[in-house]
Parts: sequence; structure tokens; C-alpha cells
Amino acid sequence: NSWLTLRTHLFCFVWQIAMIILFGVFIRYDKESNAHWVETKAHDNITSDIENDFYFRYPSFQDVHVMIFVGFGFLMTFLKRYSFGAVGFNFLIASFGLQWALLMQGWFHSLDPQTGKIFIGVESLINADFCVAGCLIAYGAVLGKVSPVQLLVMTLFGVTLFAVEEYIILNLLHARDAGGSMVIHTFGGYYGLAISRVLYRPNLHQSKRMQGSVYHSDTFAMIGTLFLWMFWPSFNSAITDHGDGQHRAVINTYLCLASTVLTTVAISSLSQKTGKLDMVHIQNSTLAGGVALGTAAEFMISPYGALIVGFFCGIISTMGYIFISPFLEKTLKIQDTCGIHNLHAMPGVIGGIVGAITAAAASESVYGKQGLINTFDFTGDFKDRTVLTQGGYQAAGMCVSIVFGVVGGAIVGSILKLPIWGDPADENCFDDEVYWEYPSHSGVQQPHDPQAARPVSPFSMLCLTISHKSLVIC
Amino acid sequence: NSWLTLRTHLFCFVWQIAMIILFGVFIRYDKESNAHWVETKAHDNITSDIENDFYFRYPSFQDVHVMIFVGFGFLMTFLKRYSFGAVGFNFLIASFGLQWALLMQGWFHSLDPQTGKIFIGVESLINADFCVAGCLIAYGAVLGKVSPVQLLVMTLFGVTLFAVEEYIILNLLHARDAGGSMVIHTFGGYYGLAISRVLYRPNLHQSKRMQGSVYHSDTFAMIGTLFLWMFWPSFNSAITDHGDGQHRAVINTYLCLASTVLTTVAISSLSQKTGKLDMVHIQNSTLAGGVALGTAAEFMISPYGALIVGFFCGIISTMGYIFISPFLEKTLKIQDTCGIHNLHAMPGVIGGIVGAITAAAASESVYGKQGLINTFDFTGDFKDRTVLTQGGYQAAGMCVSIVFGVVGGAIVGSILKLPIWGDPADENCFDDEVYWEYPSHSGVQQPHDPQAARPVSPFSMLCLTISHKSLVIC
Amino acid sequence: NSWLTLRTHLFCFVWQIAMIILFGVFIRYDKESNAHWVETKAHDNITSDIENDFYFRYPSFQDVHVMIFVGFGFLMTFLKRYSFGAVGFNFLIASFGLQWALLMQGWFHSLDPQTGKIFIGVESLINADFCVAGCLIAYGAVLGKVSPVQLLVMTLFGVTLFAVEEYIILNLLHARDAGGSMVIHTFGGYYGLAISRVLYRPNLHQSKRMQGSVYHSDTFAMIGTLFLWMFWPSFNSAITDHGDGQHRAVINTYLCLASTVLTTVAISSLSQKTGKLDMVHIQNSTLAGGVALGTAAEFMISPYGALIVGFFCGIISTMGYIFISPFLEKTLKIQDTCGIHNLHAMPGVIGGIVGAITAAAASESVYGKQGLINTFDFTGDFKDRTVLTQGGYQAAGMCVSIVFGVVGGAIVGSILKLPIWGDPADENCFDDEVYWEYPSHSGVQQPHDPQAARPVSPFSMLCLTISHKSLVIC
Repeated sequence: NSWLTLRTHLFCFVWQIAMIILFGVFIRYDKESNAHWVETKAHDNITSDIENDFYFRYPSFQDVHVMIFVGFGFLMTFLKRYSFGAVGFNFLIASFGLQWALLMQGWFHSLDPQTGKIFIGVESLINADFCVAGCLIAYGAVLGKVSPVQLLVMTLFGVTLFAVEEYIILNLLHARDAGGSMVIHTFGGYYGLAISRVLYRPNLHQSKRMQGSVYHSDTFAMIGTLFLWMFWPSFNSAITDHGDGQHRAVINTYLCLASTVLTTVAISSLSQKTGKLDMVHIQNSTLAGGVALGTAAEFMISPYGALIVGFFCGIISTMGYIFISPFLEKTLKIQDTCGIHNLHAMPGVIGGIVGAITAAAASESVYGKQGLINTFDFTGDFKDRTVLTQGGYQAAGMCVSIVFGVVGGAIVGSILKLPIWGDPADENCFDDEVYWEYPSHSGVQQPHDPQAARPVSPFSMLCLTISHKSLVIC
Repeated sequence: NSWLTLRTHLFCFVWQIAMIILFGVFIRYDKESNAHWVETKAHDNITSDIENDFYFRYPSFQDVHVMIFVGFGFLMTFLKRYSFGAVGFNFLIASFGLQWALLMQGWFHSLDPQTGKIFIGVESLINADFCVAGCLIAYGAVLGKVSPVQLLVMTLFGVTLFAVEEYIILNLLHARDAGGSMVIHTFGGYYGLAISRVLYRPNLHQSKRMQGSVYHSDTFAMIGTLFLWMFWPSFNSAITDHGDGQHRAVINTYLCLASTVLTTVAISSLSQKTGKLDMVHIQNSTLAGGVALGTAAEFMISPYGALIVGFFCGIISTMGYIFISPFLEKTLKIQDTCGIHNLHAMPGVIGGIVGAITAAAASESVYGKQGLINTFDFTGDFKDRTVLTQGGYQAAGMCVSIVFGVVGGAIVGSILKLPIWGDPADENCFDDEVYWEYPSHSGVQQPHDPQAARPVSPFSMLCLTISHKSLVIC
Repeated sequence: NSWLTLRTHLFCFVWQIAMIILFGVFIRYDKESNAHWVETKAHDNITSDIENDFYFRYPSFQDVHVMIFVGFGFLMTFLKRYSFGAVGFNFLIASFGLQWALLMQGWFHSLDPQTGKIFIGVESLINADFCVAGCLIAYGAVLGKVSPVQLLVMTLFGVTLFAVEEYIILNLLHARDAGGSMVIHTFGGYYGLAISRVLYRPNLHQSKRMQGSVYHSDTFAMIGTLFLWMFWPSFNSAITDHGDGQHRAVINTYLCLASTVLTTVAISSLSQKTGKLDMVHIQNSTLAGGVALGTAAEFMISPYGALIVGFFCGIISTMGYIFISPFLEKTLKIQDTCGIHNLHAMPGVIGGIVGAITAAAASESVYGKQGLINTFDFTGDFKDRTVLTQGGYQAAGMCVSIVFGVVGGAIVGSILKLPIWGDPADENCFDDEVYWEYPSHSGVQQPHDPQAARPVSPFSMLCLTISHKSLVIC
């Protein structure tokens, strides 16, 4: 147990010190965030500070930031006694991951060959948040079943794999994937599912009493759902082209998500004999449209096209929760706590396919000559690429993301299976008490009097006494 | 019961398919979100992508979006056992409504006569959100007393009526109403009250045990209150003129709302013999100032003018909760669950009056010659309109919104009174269990073992057993 | 008791009326929010509305606004039965404070000598929110122990003192402090601690049962934590220079806060024999990095420099909760409910020191000639100031903020100690029931039947009966 202690804080310290050293060696401000900007402006004939990329991207960045920390964090609070772990560990691994992502993505995408430095600006911050999102998705599959150290290890490798597959997909294959259907969601989904498969716990039913939600925990989870849902247009448009690119990605995502809500409700209601709705579906499947439009959001998919994508995603994702999740658990032995297969992996693959088809069907009449070049970035080495070829490379990109997710997850899962990481026993899964001091705090408390801040009626004492066995109130 | 099921999912499916078809026929990207933007820029001599309307309006749009989904949704979670319905049905009808609003508002406001198409951009999305707000206000009056199908029908007609009254007020009468005191709040308020009147339930006291809040549900509701309050400056400035128009609307709304908080607290404290505060007032009346400045926010009402409006709105709205709501229920038989009369209808009317007076009092010395023309859009057919005439048309606009609300609500209420919509029995009102699976979910649950995720102590079993009768914990 | 009532509402009314009169005399729209903007544009050769300062600052303003109302409000909801007071009184005093701040800051910083008017725009709103932040920090120290009237008085004097010290630090000493390490956090921290010292309650243990959190109240508090954490980059960049200044402040704050999270977790885990984490630390110490970078965020501290600041702040702040808070209470008799000493006062001082050192170490090679002038505003009277001198003035500024906090707090504390303010008895501290109607509300309730909205099972009746003594559920 003291060994566990040692490792958690040791990991945090060592890794943070490593980050400081690596940042000292490699990371510098880019020209738009450097005090020399006034000279850059003069040199490049930029007339106004508003042309700084900051003003094009900062509102979207803050929305994405909310999605990462509040969105993902609260979405996972649905379990009755794992809210601290959901929000708290999400906070921890995202904070670590984004630093490592700035380095990894920098080395692969923007290392300046002359100076050997990585120059960062607001777009780098968005990309780091995106990279972290992949790991947070994977966290959803193993929620409640792993230790914080395992999560940190999972994030370290996850970010590394992400940067490589992103480099292959975006730079080598030159596929487009602004909202990350392939790069983020497909990869993150399969990465998490593969890890969960390797870490399969045949006796997980021993913590059955902790699986499931209570009324207020479901309401907390809706905070996560809604902030993800509302800000998804910013997610899909955050790094698209200035002007029409960002504008169009917002419209498409906004429409697609609205459509998803209706079919999610329809299938959820249809799936119960009583016609009642299930909060699991509302919390998760309503978001599938955003995932599936990650690649095509910036394309001229047209408003009704976005609605169609959302329509089918709501259906498929909800059906996934009803039919596929039980199948995965029983047959394939994949225990997927949050159902990321239905929310990220499957819709991500759909998104890759939609992106490939939409790209292949692009035409100069719809995009305009220059519009086609801008949207697909047919410049430099790729200036002669046709839309059909582009469609093929999009499809290839999707395969790369699946392979990286499955193979990478299998390897990382094997590492995490080593019996050195202090993971919880089967009967203690989904229980905050394993890693968190239980509520007894206050600014003016007596630190060594654990009773101090607890209700002292006989009844609540009773509850505390038997809470290790079976009773959970509210 | 299976009939109910059928209808909920049937409505969602049929309407979503209808949306797809209509969007396919009518909706296209506007020139600022179209890939041809690069040509538009060249043609119109636009020097920078930052001139795209997207960058003027997107931050405000996202704030409005948060108000619609988190603000309205969580504000209604105050009931002890209707949080799922509050947030969930709000989510459903807003998602449906915004699609229908894009079509209806498009047909009335921006149908291109040559192509027969509606061209949408970020301003269209804001207007769709605004339109939906009217229906969500109406939902507040009938919260807990209607079925999801009734809500969908109410939204279908609500959006339709909204588009018509908006066309009359903004286009024909050429009234100004950027933040929608008249168009959104007055209409939405009276629409909901009229429906609630028609659906009057004399035996609603049978669900008395479910009426009222618990400690945590009141805290959840404050999330809604605060996000509405904080982002109201964005609401009132989202579609005002670029530059000083948006800037001024923000300042006015910010000040007005601050003033409202103080008088709300004062009256709330004064109303109780003990001097204690009432969460109902803090949750709702603090927002009345934003409603009442919807029309005048973009005018030169001056900072102290904004404070005065807020001062009186806090008083009137809080008094409404204390004196008028009980009167409405007893005498006029209007059961108004959230008190929308005090938060939207009455402050909306005040806002219309303030707008008319401020417009009539406008002068060239205060606005400047061009400023007056810009602010009131005295161009084209209206270039010779005087401010006095404008004041008269503003007042006329307010009357139109009341008439549409009352008459429209009465008609729609009659439709909803038909005994085919599966609404809850009197003793089941305000109870999530009628339409929602109760918490027993988890990603790894056994779907057919309802006990699985529930606490299994004798005590909690007892609770579940008698929860249909009278016991609600927490 | 009726005397208490009288005072709360009396204060609100009188002060709000005073605000209206003073705003009428002094406050006007500035040229960017005035309808004459069209003339200003022509006169100043401004080519586009997007050059209006509104578009540079509005997204940051809204983030800051969320921090003030949701961030500070929900961060303080951790106590098991003081959520209404935390969110509600925070709402009240912020709404009052921002009005008074616009006047006080206007008189000191931007009174136009010719017209005798204060001209406000979006930057004024941000500064008013900043000023209020100082008072909300102080609220954290006395949370649960004072009456609303005391809070209003504390805010009145706090804003006044703030405006004076800010004038001395920013204008007379010409120190830089964009994110307010000194002006906001150091001042606010010591102001609150000094007040808490004067109001020391030797018998506070009588409300021991109310001190501490419950599971859901800790989850609510994480909403506050996360919104503060996510939007802190906007806080530190909201009023920095257009262009690279805002851009750099965001990057530095983003990195610094990420680093803080890891060391907070490390120390929290290390501090418990079991290696478990403590929610108090996660909720608070993770934010210390943002405080400590308030001054230096806009400087060229470089990315790894930001990480180093965050690294040490996480350690020091968490250790503060473990060692210093108990010491302060026992030895210095400072009862600091939220631990603002560890979150604001101490990191604020660190921030001042970091700022002074970074300023003194600035060089033309790093900033560029013009960059140095822009960043430190070496213009006008200060055009010959060297960076070393600047470093000295920064340090002097920090001393001013401490002195104003301690002395001002001692004086205001003495005023608040007068037995006329209706503060709660020792045994009623941290209890919402003293100032709030307890949950029994609904829109359709019978106002004179307090039983109406309450659960009516024998069990819950029992709870209500004994809740004044010792029992608190959930």
C-alpha cells in the first residue's frame, strides 16, 4: 500500500520534471505569440493585430478545453460512487497528456529543422487538447477498473501512438480529418477497447453493487453530455481553414447533432416495452453525430447531408448500447464501462467512411476551383491529386487508425496487466474509496479527527459502518 | 402504453425524415460558409477572412447555445424528481425545434426569390436558437404535466407561430427587437400560459408530494440560472449591428442584470417574516432584467437607464412569484410550474414598453445622424420614418406578440387536450418514472437484472417499494 | 430578527438607488460602444468594425464572467449544507460589487478631466469583474460565518480599497499586473484573512457537524474548480496587449496550470499514509499556478518557465493545506474556511516575486526593442525606465498590495465585529437554514402550507424534526 503511494506521486514528480527539461530544450513561442510580433507584422505587411491567429481560434479553443475537462470529466460521473475518480483522474491525465502531446506532436509535425525547436501557438494548444481526447476516450472503457498510475502509463503511450498515427494519416497520406473521426475517435476507441480486453476481469460481478447510477449522478453526467454536445461545433471547426472552413464546419456539426438527438430518443423509447427513455442513451448516443462528422464537417456535405449522417448515427449508436455492448462483454470479453464502442469507435469508423465518400464525390462545380484546392489542401507535393485518389487515401487513413488502436492497445494492455500497478480488486471496482479520502473535509476541520465533519446521528453512523458491504444512499 | 411508445418514436422518426427532405429541397450554405467564399472575397474586395460574419457572431452564438441547452434545461431541474424530464425533454424539443425554425424562419425572412432556396450562416443558427427559446419558455409553464409527444407538438406549432409573428413584427412593422423581449419572451410566455390554462388540472394536488425541490435539485437549478444570467449579454447582442451595436447591448444587459439581483434579494427577504431568502426568487427573478432589456439593449438607453430597468424588474418579478402566481392559479386556473409569467411574460411586456419609449425618445444629438439610421435601420422603405412613429410601431409589435401568444396558445392547447397524447395522470405529474427508466444502468450491467445496479440493503429496498406512494429520499 | 430583515433589504435598496444616481451623474458609453462609432471610425481611419476593442476582448470577458459567478460560486459549495449561501451570496455581492467597481475604478483610472465623466467599454467590464474577484476571494475566508449584510459591507470597502491600491500599483508605481497576482489575489487574500482574524470565533467547534463536505457537494465544487481552471488563461490574458500579449498570456497560463495539477496530486497522495487523494487539494491547489502567473503571464517567461512556476505552486499550495492552515488556526487564530491563504495569498505573493524577477531579467534580445516597450509600456513618463528599475517597482507593488490587504482587512474587520450585523451564532455557522427558506417550493405550491412540497413519509418527517440538532442526510 505504501508502495502504491510511492508510485503515484513518484510518477507525477518524475514526469513533470521530465516535461520541464524537455520543454526547456525544445519548446518556444511561435512568431504570433512572441514579443517580436510587432516586427513580424511590419515584415509581413499585417495591418492589424486582429489578423493574429489567436483571434481566429481562441473562442473555439476555450470551447474544446471545456469539452476535455468538464465534458469528458462529467460525462463519466454517472456511476453512483465514482464521481471523484471520473472528474479527478480525467483532470490528472488530461493535464499530463497535453504537455506530452505538445512535445510529441511538435517533434512529428512542426520541428523546425534549422533551430531544432518546436514553436507553439494557439493551434498547438488545440491539437494538444485533441490528442488528449483520444486518451480520455480510452479511459471511458476502463473507468473504475484501473489505478491512477495505470492511467498515467496509458496516457503516456496513448499520446505517443496518437502522434505517430496522426503523422501518418495527416502528413504522409495527406488525409483530411479536422474533427478527428479517424485520428481521435476511431484510434481512441479501439485503443481503449483493446486495453479493456487484455485487462478482462472475469469476476467483475463482485462489484455489481457499485455498477449503475443514482438519480443525482445521472444529472451530473448530463452536464458533461450537454457541454460536449453544445461545443462540438467548435471541436470540429477549431483547426479548419479560416473563413468559410470554420463557418461550414460549425453549421454541419450543429445540424448533424440535432438530428442525432431525435433518432436516439426514438430508438431508446422503442427499445423498452414500456416506451420509457434510458438515460444511458440520452447521455451518450446523442453525441455520436458529432463524432461521425469529424472528418466531413469542413466539406460541402450540404445541410441535409449532415442531417442524414446524424439520423443514422443516433440509430446505430443507441442500438449499440442495446445489442452490441452485451455481445462484446459476453462473447469478446470486452468490458466497456462507458460504452465507448458505441459513442466513439463505431461512429468514428462511420465518420471515416463518410469522409472518404464525400471527398471522392467532391467536384469543382460545388467547391469552385480554388475552393477545392483550399478545402483539400491540394498544394505542394499534392497539387495534382484528384478527389477520387483523395477518397482512397481517406479510407486508407481510417485503416491506419484502427490498426494503431487495436495493436497499440493490445501491447499497452499487456504492460498494464503486470501486477505492479496497484489496480483495484474485483470487489472494489467502481468505488472512489480505494483512491480518495472520503468526504470529511473543511477548511477549519481538525485534521486528525475523521469524525469531525461527518453527520453524527446514529442512522448515518450505521450507514458508514455498513457502506463497505452493500448500502449506498443516494 | 405500447400505443404511447409507438407515438413517441414515430413522431421523432417521421419528423426527422421530413426535416431531411425539406432541408434537401430548401437549405443551402450562404456565401460566407460556402467553399466559393474565396471568390466572394475577391469580388467584394474583402481583404481578410476575419471579416467573415462568423468571427463577429460565433462567440455570442456559443453562449446562446449554452443558454438554450444548459441554461433552460438546468433551470427547470429544481423539482425533486423531474430533473431527467427537465434536462432531457428540453434537449429533445430544442433539437427538433431548431431544425424546424431554420425552415420556417428561412421561408419567411430569407427565401431567395430567384433560386427558391434558403441560405444559412451563423446568424441563422442564432435565430433558430432564439426561436426555440420561445418554445422552451412555454415548456416552463407545463413542466411535469405533459408527455414528450405533447411537447413535440407544442414545439411544432410554437415555432410556426413564432416565425409568423416575428415576420409581422420585424419585417412588416419594422420594429426593432434584437434580444426578443416581444418576439421571444412575451410570445413564449403567453403561449405557455394559454396552453397551461386550457390543460388546467383541477386535481393536480394529487401529485403534491412531487411538487417542490430538495437541497441538491435547487443547487442544480442554480447552474441553469447562472449560465442564463452570465450569458444574457451575449443573447441580447448576438444579432445586433457589428461594432457599437453589439458592444452597447452587452454593457446595457450586464448592468441591468446586476441591478436586478439586488432588488430581487431585497424583495425576497422582505417577503418573509424571518427575512430569509427564497431560492425560487433567486433562481428566476434575477433574470428578469435580461428579458426586459431585450428590445432596448442596443439603444442608447444609457448605463443608468439600464440600471433603472433592472431595478424595477427585480421588484416586479419577485412580487409576481409572491402575489400573482397564487392569484393566477386560484382565480384564472393557470398552473404555471416555473412561474414563466413572472420571468418571461411580464418582464417581456415591460421590455416592449421600455423599447417603445426609448425609441420614441431617440434623438440625433444622442445617436448622431448616421448612428440613428444604423440603430433603427431607417433605410429602404423606412428611410423617412421618424423616431416617434418608430415608437408607435414598437408598441404595435408588442400587441402582436401578446395576441399570437394568447390566441395561438389557446388553439394549440385545445389540440393538446385531445385524449390521445399519453399525458400523465394527475397523481403522476412531476415524476420522472412515468417517462424514464429509473437509475439502474451501467456499461457492464446485466440488462435483464433490474436489481443489478440498485442498492440492495433492506432500507433501500423499502424505499423502492414505497416510492410510488409517498417517500422520496434526497 | 425583523431588524435583520430590515437591514438586508434596506442595504440592497439604498445601495442600488445610490448606484443609479451615481451612474446617472458619471457613467457614459465610451466611443467604441457609442452610436457615434460610425463617426469615430471615419475620423480615425478604422477600416472595419472588427477593429472595435469588443472583438479583441469579448470572448475573454465572458470566460472571466463565468469564473466570477460559476467558478467562485460553485468552488465554495463543498460544505454539506452551505451551497445556497455559497452560490447565492456570491451572486449577490458580485452583482453589487461590479457596479461599485465601475465607479471606483472609473474615478481613479479613467475620469475624463474635461467632462467629468467616466466612459466605459468592454475593458471596463472586465476590470470590474476583476475587482469583484478580490472581494470574492475574501469571502472564501469567512464563508459560513457572516451575514449577507456583513458581506455587502465587506464588498463596499473591499472594492474601495481595491481601486486605491490598484491605482497606486498600476498607475503611480507603473507596475505590470495583467492577471492580478498582486492587485487581485494578494490583496484579496490578505484582506479576507485579516477580517477572519478580527472575527475569530473561539467556539466555532459548536458547528462542527456542519463543517465538511458530502459526496455530492464535493462534486458540485468540482464544477467551480474546473471552470476556474479552464478559463484562467482568459483571466490572465483578458486585458493584456492585443496580439502577441494576449496570445502569450494564454499559452503561459495553460502550461503553468497543467503542471500544477501533477504536483498537487503528488503531494496530496504523499500526505496520506494510505496514498489516497484529498478532494480539498484537488479542488483548490490545482488553481494555484494560475494565481502565481497573474503578473508574469504576459512576459516572455518562456514555456518551461511557466511549467516551473506551476510545479512549485502545486507543491506549496498543497503543503499549505496540510501544514499551514492548521497552524494559522491554532496559533494565529485565523479561521480560513476555504483555505484562501493557500490558494490566493501565498501564490499571489509568489506571483509578485516571479513577476519582479522576470521583469528585471527582461532583455532586448528576447523581447526586441519595440516588444520591450510594448510589454512593459515604457512610454510617456516611463520611457526611460530600465528593466531593473521595473523589477524594483514590481516588488514595491507587491508590498503595497499586502499592506492594503492586512491593514484594510483589520479596519473593515473591526467594523464588521460591531454587534449590529445579524451574524449567525457559533452553533449555526455553515448552515443555510439561517438565511434561506429550506426546500419546500414549487410554482404551483400552496404558499401557506409548508408541508406541501415536502416528502411526507414518517422517516423524512423524522429527519426534518431532528435536523436542527444533528442529522444531515446526503
